[in-house]
Amino acid sequence: MGGFLIKSLYFSIDPSLRSRLGLVFQEGETIFNWGIGVVLRSEHPEVKFGDRIEGVFNFEEYTIRYGMKGDTAAQCLTRVENRHKLPWSVFVGAIGISGKTAYYGWKEFSHAKAGEVVYVSTGAGAVGSIVIQLAKRDGLKVIASAGSEEKVKLLKDIGVDVAFNYKTTKTSDVLQKEGPIDIYWDNVGGEMLESSLDASSNGARIIICGAISGYNSGNAQPIRNLVQLIYKSITLYGLYVYEYDHKYREEFYQVMPDLIAKGEIKYAEDVTIGLEKVGETILAQQKGLNTGKSIIKVTETE
Amino acid sequence: MGGFLIKSLYFSIDPSLRSRLGLVFQEGETIFNWGIGVVLRSEHPEVKFGDRIEGVFNFEEYTIRYGMKGDTAAQCLTRVENRHKLPWSVFVGAIGISGKTAYYGWKEFSHAKAGEVVYVSTGAGAVGSIVIQLAKRDGLKVIASAGSEEKVKLLKDIGVDVAFNYKTTKTSDVLQKEGPIDIYWDNVGGEMLESSLDASSNGARIIICGAISGYNSGNAQPIRNLVQLIYKSITLYGLYVYEYDHKYREEFYQVMPDLIAKGEIKYAEDVTIGLEKVGETILAQQKGLNTGKSIIKVTETE
Repeated sequence: MGGFLIKSLYFSIDPSLRSRLGLVFQEGETIFNWGIGVVLRSEHPEVKFGDRIEGVFNFEEYTIRYGMKGDTAAQCLTRVENRHKLPWSVFVGAIGISGKTAYYGWKEFSHAKAGEVVYVSTGAGAVGSIVIQLAKRDGLKVIASAGSEEKVKLLKDIGVDVAFNYKTTKTSDVLQKEGPIDIYWDNVGGEMLESSLDASSNGARIIICGAISGYNSGNAQPIRNLVQLIYKSITLYGLYVYEYDHKYREEFYQVMPDLIAKGEIKYAEDVTIGLEKVGETILAQQKGLNTGKSIIKVTETE
Repeated sequence: MGGFLIKSLYFSIDPSLRSRLGLVFQEGETIFNWGIGVVLRSEHPEVKFGDRIEGVFNFEEYTIRYGMKGDTAAQCLTRVENRHKLPWSVFVGAIGISGKTAYYGWKEFSHAKAGEVVYVSTGAGAVGSIVIQLAKRDGLKVIASAGSEEKVKLLKDIGVDVAFNYKTTKTSDVLQKEGPIDIYWDNVGGEMLESSLDASSNGARIIICGAISGYNSGNAQPIRNLVQLIYKSITLYGLYVYEYDHKYREEFYQVMPDLIAKGEIKYAEDVTIGLEKVGETILAQQKGLNTGKSIIKVTETE
């Protein structure tokens, strides 16, 4: 069976890339992550010229592949439809891995009820901002934090009830005043997770989606108060998005592109042009300098 | 409505008592915990002479109460039946709070399937030993640890497949060899929880039942590798037994006394006579010197 040639268009830059350096990614090797490309030539019966393909790509301008199926969900390629004529960059963000992480995790683990209180850390990030909007649609009170005044403004724009800058306001103070919290969406780990455990209601759900505070410290920041799990019947869910792809993928593509096209779910992007900028873009994200989904646009033109 | 006078018979000594010292229990005040007593006199229409009553009692020889209902499940008193003529001490252990903790937690959170692997820390303890036997009945491979050769022998007697002394054998070595583990029943926290996270299978369930390693250190031992929750879709459940009393209580009393009377579930007891021995009994348990359920028999004769 013949192969097909894909021109890379957009790559997703995710905080978790950091955790793979030196483990999954060895020095001198090409790194890879979620992306989208366009088929320039195909000798494969199921793939044709002009198809837009989503999946995990090596960070290179052109890729040759020989099939759509991979060993794991993450390795599978998928042809994407764009009925709403959305910008293709959205397919690595709000309708890509970030949107899926938010949507699958929220549906599977939040057990959200209207009137409950949720706290979202890194609320201005690609995943957090979608979680916030899903929570608002479900009728929850949303507390969210970010690391700059600009990001706090973005939080307010997407409907957050209590938005704060965690660098100038103590998380534990806010949660004590505005909590207790029924759900915590954790992108950070460390101190914020500890504060959230302390401020949890009885029966709270905590969704562990990321641990950015630990990626750069060599050792993750330790959690000292897990005993709160016992006292308050708290459940901690580890969210590995690929596990839930078979369960929610179809629903996701029915629901999200439509909500985004109508403007009912908003997204922000931080696009950097050029593969040679990948290194500094990862670094900027680890420093929290991006606002919205961090994306590499591989070449100037699609 | 009149009250009733209860003579205290047996009190449960639990590792978690330690965590309440200075918090729930203030210096100079009477401590309290699960126990069983017999009614000596009653002016209450629902309670009569000779009734055996289970509930949370102050640690004193006689108690006067005015009703069976409390504000919380833990404060409620319950009349217990003893169709199988079991020793009354069992009603603070295998058919009391320890058995319920094991049974409710296993039923609610383990999602056990035959052929899976479970690791139980403090397997020779009152809760752990019941968990082990429930797991064996469900067809699992059971790994369990304890802190002495005598306790390791007890583990083998109740059917543990891989029993080890954690003081002479490294937990992480055993789990690496005999795992990965699908379920971890955690009575300890600290290093054992970290090793279990590292040795978990994809989709593992961890039931946090106790954190004895942290009760005496002022600060609980921190957990550094919660990021494993993400990588392996692990769920951590905090087990607060009272939360599940309404759901499993009836089933529990139908199932467990029968299994115990038939010898299909075994239990061990470590009974100390005399209220004046409570202090040293709590200390001995914190040091791991008891084998089996630690119980105070209030007076020489029932």
